[in-house]
Amino acid sequence: MTPIYNQLGIVKRNIERADSAVAEQLGRLGSATVHEAMGRVGLLKPYMRPIYAGAAVGGTAVTVLLHPGDNWMMHVAAEQIQPGDIVVAAITAECTDGYFGDLLATSFMARGAKALIIDAGVRDVRTLTEMGFPVWCKCISSKGTIKATIGSVNIPVICAGALVNPGDVVVADDDGVAVVPAADAARVAEVAARREALEGEKRAKLAAGVLGLDMYNMRGVLAEAGLKYVD
Amino acid sequence: MTPIYNQLGIVKRNIERADSAVAEQLGRLGSATVHEAMGRVGLLKPYMRPIYAGAAVGGTAVTVLLHPGDNWMMHVAAEQIQPGDIVVAAITAECTDGYFGDLLATSFMARGAKALIIDAGVRDVRTLTEMGFPVWCKCISSKGTIKATIGSVNIPVICAGALVNPGDVVVADDDGVAVVPAADAARVAEVAARREALEGEKRAKLAAGVLGLDMYNMRGVLAEAGLKYVD
Amino acid sequence: MTPIYNQLGIVKRNIERADSAVAEQLGRLGSATVHEAMGRVGLLKPYMRPIYAGAAVGGTAVTVLLHPGDNWMMHVAAEQIQPGDIVVAAITAECTDGYFGDLLATSFMARGAKALIIDAGVRDVRTLTEMGFPVWCKCISSKGTIKATIGSVNIPVICAGALVNPGDVVVADDDGVAVVPAADAARVAEVAARREALEGEKRAKLAAGVLGLDMYNMRGVLAEAGLKYVD
Amino acid sequence: MTPIYNQLGIVKRNIERADSAVAEQLGRLGSATVHEAMGRVGLLKPYMRPIYAGAAVGGTAVTVLLHPGDNWMMHVAAEQIQPGDIVVAAITAECTDGYFGDLLATSFMARGAKALIIDAGVRDVRTLTEMGFPVWCKCISSKGTIKATIGSVNIPVICAGALVNPGDVVVADDDGVAVVPAADAARVAEVAARREALEGEKRAKLAAGVLGLDMYNMRGVLAEAGLKYVD
Amino acid sequence: MTPIYNQLGIVKRNIERADSAVAEQLGRLGSATVHEAMGRVGLLKPYMRPIYAGAAVGGTAVTVLLHPGDNWMMHVAAEQIQPGDIVVAAITAECTDGYFGDLLATSFMARGAKALIIDAGVRDVRTLTEMGFPVWCKCISSKGTIKATIGSVNIPVICAGALVNPGDVVVADDDGVAVVPAADAARVAEVAARREALEGEKRAKLAAGVLGLDMYNMRGVLAEAGLKYVD
Amino acid sequence: MTPIYNQLGIVKRNIERADSAVAEQLGRLGSATVHEAMGRVGLLKPYMRPIYAGAAVGGTAVTVLLHPGDNWMMHVAAEQIQPGDIVVAAITAECTDGYFGDLLATSFMARGAKALIIDAGVRDVRTLTEMGFPVWCKCISSKGTIKATIGSVNIPVICAGALVNPGDVVVADDDGVAVVPAADAARVAEVAARREALEGEKRAKLAAGVLGLDMYNMRGVLAEAGLKYVD
Repeated sequence: MTPIYNQLGIVKRNIERADSAVAEQLGRLGSATVHEAMGRVGLLKPYMRPIYAGAAVGGTAVTVLLHPGDNWMMHVAAEQIQPGDIVVAAITAECTDGYFGDLLATSFMARGAKALIIDAGVRDVRTLTEMGFPVWCKCISSKGTIKATIGSVNIPVICAGALVNPGDVVVADDDGVAVVPAADAARVAEVAARREALEGEKRAKLAAGVLGLDMYNMRGVLAEAGLKYVD
Repeated sequence: MTPIYNQLGIVKRNIERADSAVAEQLGRLGSATVHEAMGRVGLLKPYMRPIYAGAAVGGTAVTVLLHPGDNWMMHVAAEQIQPGDIVVAAITAECTDGYFGDLLATSFMARGAKALIIDAGVRDVRTLTEMGFPVWCKCISSKGTIKATIGSVNIPVICAGALVNPGDVVVADDDGVAVVPAADAARVAEVAARREALEGEKRAKLAAGVLGLDMYNMRGVLAEAGLKYVD
Repeated sequence: MTPIYNQLGIVKRNIERADSAVAEQLGRLGSATVHEAMGRVGLLKPYMRPIYAGAAVGGTAVTVLLHPGDNWMMHVAAEQIQPGDIVVAAITAECTDGYFGDLLATSFMARGAKALIIDAGVRDVRTLTEMGFPVWCKCISSKGTIKATIGSVNIPVICAGALVNPGDVVVADDDGVAVVPAADAARVAEVAARREALEGEKRAKLAAGVLGLDMYNMRGVLAEAGLKYVD
Repeated sequence: MTPIYNQLGIVKRNIERADSAVAEQLGRLGSATVHEAMGRVGLLKPYMRPIYAGAAVGGTAVTVLLHPGDNWMMHVAAEQIQPGDIVVAAITAECTDGYFGDLLATSFMARGAKALIIDAGVRDVRTLTEMGFPVWCKCISSKGTIKATIGSVNIPVICAGALVNPGDVVVADDDGVAVVPAADAARVAEVAARREALEGEKRAKLAAGVLGLDMYNMRGVLAEAGLKYVD
Repeated sequence: MTPIYNQLGIVKRNIERADSAVAEQLGRLGSATVHEAMGRVGLLKPYMRPIYAGAAVGGTAVTVLLHPGDNWMMHVAAEQIQPGDIVVAAITAECTDGYFGDLLATSFMARGAKALIIDAGVRDVRTLTEMGFPVWCKCISSKGTIKATIGSVNIPVICAGALVNPGDVVVADDDGVAVVPAADAARVAEVAARREALEGEKRAKLAAGVLGLDMYNMRGVLAEAGLKYVD
Repeated sequence: MTPIYNQLGIVKRNIERADSAVAEQLGRLGSATVHEAMGRVGLLKPYMRPIYAGAAVGGTAVTVLLHPGDNWMMHVAAEQIQPGDIVVAAITAECTDGYFGDLLATSFMARGAKALIIDAGVRDVRTLTEMGFPVWCKCISSKGTIKATIGSVNIPVICAGALVNPGDVVVADDDGVAVVPAADAARVAEVAARREALEGEKRAKLAAGVLGLDMYNMRGVLAEAGLKYVD
């Protein structure tokens, strides 16, 4: 991998995107199931929250690296968006400013973006909600930004503790945000789908009153581990 | 009280639950009124928030102590749930993982649980919301857990800064979570109900424009304390 | 300015309020637009959040300075409220207690208050939501307060990192809270209105697929700053 | 256990203290070893930090419950201190004020106190350091407190997430603070001492270059768990 | 007071400084005593910590308002420093970058500055410590800043929750940072000095074993408030 | 790059380390200078702090990925350490437990490790300080860990917000932690050394009273940007 620091001031135009049908399938499976299918990795930190409840998306990452208090690269990123993309924005230092509002959202939607994931703040959240453009972010802030320093678009970024490469699949819902490397998206989708299929059956049993203790045959292992029942 | 550390690896089957009618009455009175009736104590820390607005419950505590990143004991706890119970989960160290999702919720509901209070994270929050199973928690996270280390069920636990004994009444609503020792539930309910009865009258006066300054006879005391009006 | 510390124990009755029509206009323009019109200053910290989504207000500040865990001055403040006012409450030290609930809200509404901004906690949030009385606060907590120490009403206060003078315009919505000095309210409203007018036009262009890169003529400046496109 | 809320406004004069020699022994063993000997429980949250490095104490708890911004009960607690005691202070709500300074430290030292553990702030830390009176606390703050509301002394308290009963052994050092129930102090000391004895031997081996992998016979178990070595 | 937002891009050259002898006297009295003398107000938030222990200063404020990630105004501020000044730096939004290092410190010291108070990060802390230039800050960070946006020098600023006017006295030590309005410095110094004088006497009594309960005649008031002693 | 999730349960034995002389040179240059030389990127989050002041190291990364509350892989990592290495430990979820103490430090030192960088807690900090083994960490905690789940050694990890590949240069001092990709270490060292050489000259000028305003020729640009001097 080319070192990140060589990539300041760069916009990569041609990126290899994961298959869009797979991205959508992963989106339907949800961040929790996908993360389990990957071996319990691939999650952004839990402080990343949706600006409204109920949104659930799967798409391909267009990444952008910005500086604190400076959203210049957002406009550069807009041009790189293709239908089905999700913009993933990282900042070079901790920042709570509102990098994104309804104007940029209008532009992103016109380009076909499905969502924004940003490790900073956004604003105009009521309008964004009305527009149905979902955002997962660290905070909400009216604080505006300037356009003074260049960053990069479509380089690998660290967003909220996770490495995101351009073209990776991003899955975001009410539980959080997961990232699946493009090369593994199909296989992860397969494992995740199998995992979900099993859940329906389990749910029915548990609803009928069967205990997990019995369904998963835990009693013996628990006793062996030393668990004692007392009255 | 038997020391907590003697109780690792223990499941207490017979616990003395507070009266369920009293628990429900306390639930209707709400966490703020109940906490006031107890002398302004008994609250969990305010970082404990509901996963959806509007839920309000009162029930009896089934407690569970878990290890970081390990939800094994949740399945053990499920078996100890009786209708009207609220599961109160504490972790032996700070953890933000998602210990609980829709499968466990299905099982808990089948057993008659009314809610979960957990000093960690949960996931599947959209499904939990649709199921109408309320959870008060520290955070929301897709991060899954393992099943490797035993903890305990129905021992005294410290959850979000409050001591909860099995059988205690738990009151949770949009304002937070309060705990009432089982032995005092009836008396607290009485005091809280009286307190609430007085509020209706006060509300009517205040709505009519009477000032708290006059209704509570504060003017003299304030002047004595040195309050000065200037123009 | 008279030093703050000389003003403990003081209630200022006659304050010069910004024009109420201007305050309402600023409320409609919103905290983000208003803050930009002021030169990107005047915001309270982004941890100040509304207790329910969708509220948006503009009003004139009645300020109150309280001590940790003590809401006595809230009752004193109530008497100073005039229709169109927004109460801005600061605490002399960090505190998360619930200073305000439905009874005080009833009184504030009876006096004509439009909202409360408080750098601490509130409670009874479900009732406040039903009453339609919006609050922007640091947290939600059932924890009650006492009435033991006098503070002040209508002195300059620092609330969530911003200086608020009595009579200033307060603008609060889903994006946060902005404060406009009374003397500048009219001019800020003018600049903000102009700013907003321009946004409609921009929005239409962006929705039609025009890029910000072109609309704002950024390509040349970006190239000059060293931005490179690669494949 | 008598419910906590019945104990507001109470000072318990006669408490059963753990043996002072055992308390000192536990202090020498340190918070990490003691907590391990207890089965990895009994720790206060890691945000509790010493005001200066290098202090290490073991003593018996005198507990005090205070209200936010009010240190009145500290003076009441002083009278209950016996030589070898450590005062453990809990607050009924989150607070960062400076409850304790050099005057109270002078009084506590005159009574024989060895340390203060407080889930809030302290001040005069330079003088406290010069006096050699160690404090473990949540923060440091010049903010003074008032004396207006009564709390309690020598009731069970929850301090930084741990239950502390009066007379329990408190162990505090650079790694944090552990609490040992009085009734188990001797047994914990025994287990902890054995644990420490083994450490010397292990340390020598590791210093000689023996790997933990071999010393603990981990290679087989790791391979079984699926660990793979690649080049 | 001229509104803050009119003052972006302004450097005020002539400010009225508090008397330097008084500033030094207040520095010797310390932040806790000074804050008490002011009526328990005037403190910056407790997250402001010194980069090394033991520093204690009193000086007159030169204020500077900077943007996130931009330290340009620090150089402008340097020219306004006179011997005995303390630079107080506020940022227009939350930021943790390292705005200040050994080069700027060299310049500030050459101008006679006694310290820096900054609501953000600094770096080169080992060198700053060796140079004996004390800094109170929110955090320490290697992250560098740019020089792109103008702010202001010697306008009123809100730093860590406190209003600081240019020329005000700043008192900083291991307990935190206090601000005294220039016009009141002399009077505060007088009250604070009296307060301190009384402390010596109290300290002697407490060291001799007299209890605060008796020295402050608290027993009656406590009994009246309902405090009960039990065995 | 092989996707991270394929690498759970893997120990890579042969990694390409950056040149050790360059790593040491970068260590002497320090995290701030190195980060600037890289174009103001490459830093771990500022919450990573040294357990004692004054340590400054440069070395090559051996990386380890661990699970919350589980330090098993630390023993596996020990075997991969070569003289001059710095162990960089990431956790799959937020955790504050004490993963590392004096026994592991003894083993790490015996293998030639220069430091540990861990996005979690450590313990035995007094002993670690006496041993002179520096650690940069998120917190200090007595809380012990278990050995139940395998992670990986020498795979790319995200530690405190930065991507670290095995063999990269790690630079850590009182200002924080920076990471330099192995392939760029020599070039970064060159740029950083040049940068530092220039600083000596600047320092002398500033110490002599020359202002940055003049040394950097800022006056014209500032005036152009609109800065105004007033009296």
